[in-house]
Amino acid sequence: LSWLDRLDEARAFLELHARSHHANAPSFQRRWAEVRRALMRHGHYDHTPEELAFGAKLAWRNHAGCIGRLFWDSLLVRDRRNTSEPEAIFSDLCRHLEDATGDGRIRSIISIYPPMQPGRRPSYVESAQLIRYAGYLDEGGCVIGDRKAIEATRVAQSLGWNPPDRKGPFDILPVVIRDADERRHLFNLPSGLVREVPITHPHCPEIAAMGLRWYAVPVVSDMILTIGGIDYPCAPFNGFYMCTEIASRNFADRGRYDLLPKAARRLQLDPDSHETLWKDATLTELNRAVLHSYQAAGVTMVDHHTASDQFMQFLARESATGRRVSGDWTWLVPPQASSACEVFHHDMTDLRTVPNFYRSRGTDG
Amino acid sequence: LSWLDRLDEARAFLELHARSHHANAPSFQRRWAEVRRALMRHGHYDHTPEELAFGAKLAWRNHAGCIGRLFWDSLLVRDRRNTSEPEAIFSDLCRHLEDATGDGRIRSIISIYPPMQPGRRPSYVESAQLIRYAGYLDEGGCVIGDRKAIEATRVAQSLGWNPPDRKGPFDILPVVIRDADERRHLFNLPSGLVREVPITHPHCPEIAAMGLRWYAVPVVSDMILTIGGIDYPCAPFNGFYMCTEIASRNFADRGRYDLLPKAARRLQLDPDSHETLWKDATLTELNRAVLHSYQAAGVTMVDHHTASDQFMQFLARESATGRRVSGDWTWLVPPQASSACEVFHHDMTDLRTVPNFYRSRGTDG
Ligand code: HEM
Ligand code: HEM
Repeated sequence: LSWLDRLDEARAFLELHARSHHANAPSFQRRWAEVRRALMRHGHYDHTPEELAFGAKLAWRNHAGCIGRLFWDSLLVRDRRNTSEPEAIFSDLCRHLEDATGDGRIRSIISIYPPMQPGRRPSYVESAQLIRYAGYLDEGGCVIGDRKAIEATRVAQSLGWNPPDRKGPFDILPVVIRDADERRHLFNLPSGLVREVPITHPHCPEIAAMGLRWYAVPVVSDMILTIGGIDYPCAPFNGFYMCTEIASRNFADRGRYDLLPKAARRLQLDPDSHETLWKDATLTELNRAVLHSYQAAGVTMVDHHTASDQFMQFLARESATGRRVSGDWTWLVPPQASSACEVFHHDMTDLRTVPNFYRSRGTDG
Repeated sequence: LSWLDRLDEARAFLELHARSHHANAPSFQRRWAEVRRALMRHGHYDHTPEELAFGAKLAWRNHAGCIGRLFWDSLLVRDRRNTSEPEAIFSDLCRHLEDATGDGRIRSIISIYPPMQPGRRPSYVESAQLIRYAGYLDEGGCVIGDRKAIEATRVAQSLGWNPPDRKGPFDILPVVIRDADERRHLFNLPSGLVREVPITHPHCPEIAAMGLRWYAVPVVSDMILTIGGIDYPCAPFNGFYMCTEIASRNFADRGRYDLLPKAARRLQLDPDSHETLWKDATLTELNRAVLHSYQAAGVTMVDHHTASDQFMQFLARESATGRRVSGDWTWLVPPQASSACEVFHHDMTDLRTVPNFYRSRGTDG
C-alpha cells in the first residue's frame, strides 16, 4: 500500500465506523484529524478498541471465500495489541483455543496482536493453523499423515521438534512463531488443550475401524488482517468446521490423506471402475461419518446444505441493507453435491473490499 | 467486430491454417491477398471447405467451458453453406441427428449453414437444442416437464403447436427456425428420429417406476460459430452426454425437473433433514441410474471422473504442443464429487481465443 492509499483506506474506514455507530459529524471530524495527523507524522495510527472490533467483523463480512458469513456480527474480538513476544503470544493463543473450544459449542473468535509499523514487522505465526497434523515422507515414497504438512513437518524437525517414537497419521505439529527478527520459535500445544473427535460412522463399523480423527477447532493463523490502512500480520481466527472441509477435502484429496480407495473398500465399494461412482458414494459416507461423529461428540459443525442456505440468508440480509456482497464462486460452492446447493446458482464477484483478510501481502495486498 | 478486427482475425486464422497444413509461404501470401481483397471490397470472404473444417475443430478446442475437448480433432464437419431456407435446413438437421445417433455409438458432428454477411443475417435455429422437452405451468402453479422450457413451450403454442392431449413430462418440442426476415417457422421432429433412453436403476426398481427418460443426443443449436472474422449463426453441433448433465442438473435442479425429493423417497431416504445428506446420496443414485440406462441401451455417455481424466490428458497434450488451454473453472468442474475430479485442482483462465462458439454476439462477441 502506498502512503496515499493508506490515508484513503483509513478515512473510508473511519467514516464507515462513524456511520454505523451513529457518531455525529464533529466527532468524526475530530477523529479523522487525529488519525490523519498520526499517519502523516508516523505513518501509523492506533485503532480504538471499538474500531478494532468493528474492523475485524467487517473483514470477515467482506471475505469473498467464506460461506459462514451470516454470523459475522457475533465474532468475539480479543484485543491483544499489548502482547508481542512469541512466548506470550503462544500462551495467549492457548487461551484463545480453550475459549473457542469450550464444551464443544464452538465460539468464533479472533485474537489480534500488534500491527505492522513503518519499518517494523512484529511477531507472527508461521503455521497455517494452530493445530495441524504432521506428514512424514519415508524413503520408499510412502506418506504417513497429512501430505500438505510434509514441508512444515520437515521444518519443525530441523528446528529440533521430535516426532513421537511411533509416527502416526495424526501427530500434532508444534506451532511456529516468528519474532520481530524473523527468528523461529517452536511451541508444543499442551495435550489436554486440543479437542479431537474420533471418526465413526452411523452404521458402518469398518469406517470407525480406520482410526480416523480430526481436531474440533480450525484456527487459521497465517492470514493478514487489514483494517483502515493498518495491517495486522498476527490475527489468528477460528470458526467451526463445515463437514466437507474434513470429509471431502482433508481426508479425500490426493494431496492430503488420500483415503478414498481405502474407505471405499471398507464400504464394500469397488474402487476399480469410475462408472460405479464409488468416489461419489464414498465421499457421501465420509461426510456422514464426520457429521455423525462431531454431533455425537457435541462439537459444533455445519453441513454444506445448511451452510449454503445460511449464506443465501446472508446475501438477502446484506442486499436488504443496500450492501453489495463479495463472493468467490470457486471458494464458496461446496466440493460435494455442488449444484444441489443454492449458492451454485448465483453469480458472484470478488470486490476485494477492505477491511479484509489476505494470505500474502505480495500477491493480494 | 470492427472491420479492422475482422481483418486481424482473418489473417491470424489463415496463418494458423497454413502452418498446420504445412503450406509454403507463397501459397499463404496468395490466399491472404485474396481474402484481404474480398474483405475490403465486400466486407466478407468465403472459407474453403478445408478452412471451414479446421476452423470448426479449433472453435471446439478453444471453448473454455467444454470438458470433452480431448476429441476435438475427430469432429465431423458438414459443410452446408448452400442450404439456406428453413425447410431445407430442418430436413438436413434431421440427417445430422440421424448420423450422430447411429446405432447408439454417438458421433460428434457439426453442420454449418450460411454465414452472416454485411447487412444480411441468414436463417438460424432459435431453439436452444434440437431436442428439448416441453414445460407446462398450470393455473395452480404446478409444472409438468422441464421448467427451463416453459417460455419456449409458450412460444411454440402461440405459433400454433399443439401439445399432446395428455400433457406429459417428456413431450418433445418443435424446432423453431428463423428465416432471413426473422419470421419463425416450426418443425416437428419425426418421431422415429429421436432416440430416447428410459431410465432404470441397477438395483432399485422404484427409480425405474418413476418413468423418467432422456434423449440420446444433445445438439446445441443456439450458438454462433466464429472463424477468422466470419460468424456462422447457424451451426448446430453435438457431442455425447456426460452423466451429471442429465442426472445432477436436468433432473435435479430446482429450475428444471426438481426430482430430488421424489427420488429420495423412492430410495427410502428421508428428505427432511439436511444432515442425512439425502441430496448427496440421491444425486449419486440418479447418476448411477442414468449411466446404467445409457450403457444398457448402448448409447454413448461418459461419467464425470472419466471426463475429468480425459480433460487432464487434453491439457497435457496441448501443453506438449506449446499451446495454452482456455478453461473456465466454473463450467469445467463437474457439479458432483467435484474435488474428487482432478480438474478441480487446476487454475484456469478463459483466454477467449478465436475461433470459438459464442452464445450471444451482444455479450461475448
Ligand atoms: C462460523 C463458522 C464458519 C464457517 C462454517 C466457515 C466456513 C468457511 C469455509 C468452508 C471456508 C473455505 C475453506 C477452504 O475451502 O479451505 C472458509 C474460508 C474462510 N473463512 Fe470462514 N467460516 C466460519 C468462520 C469464519 C470466521 C470467524 C472468519 C474470520 C473472522 C472466517 C474467515 C474466512 C476466511 C478469511 C477464509 C479464507 C481462508 C483461506 O484463504 O484459507 N470464517 N470459511
Ligand atoms: C464429445 C463429447 C462431449 C462431451 C462429453 C462434452 C461435454 C461438455 C459439458 C459437460 C459441457 C457443459 C454443459 C453444461 O454445463 O451445460 C460442455 C459445454 C460445451 N461444449 Fe462440449 N462436450 C462434447 C462435445 C462437444 C462438441 C462436439 C462441441 C463443439 C463442436 C462442444 C462444444 C461445447 C460448447 C460450446 C459448450 C458450452 C455450451 C454452452 O454454453 O451452453 N462440445 N461440453
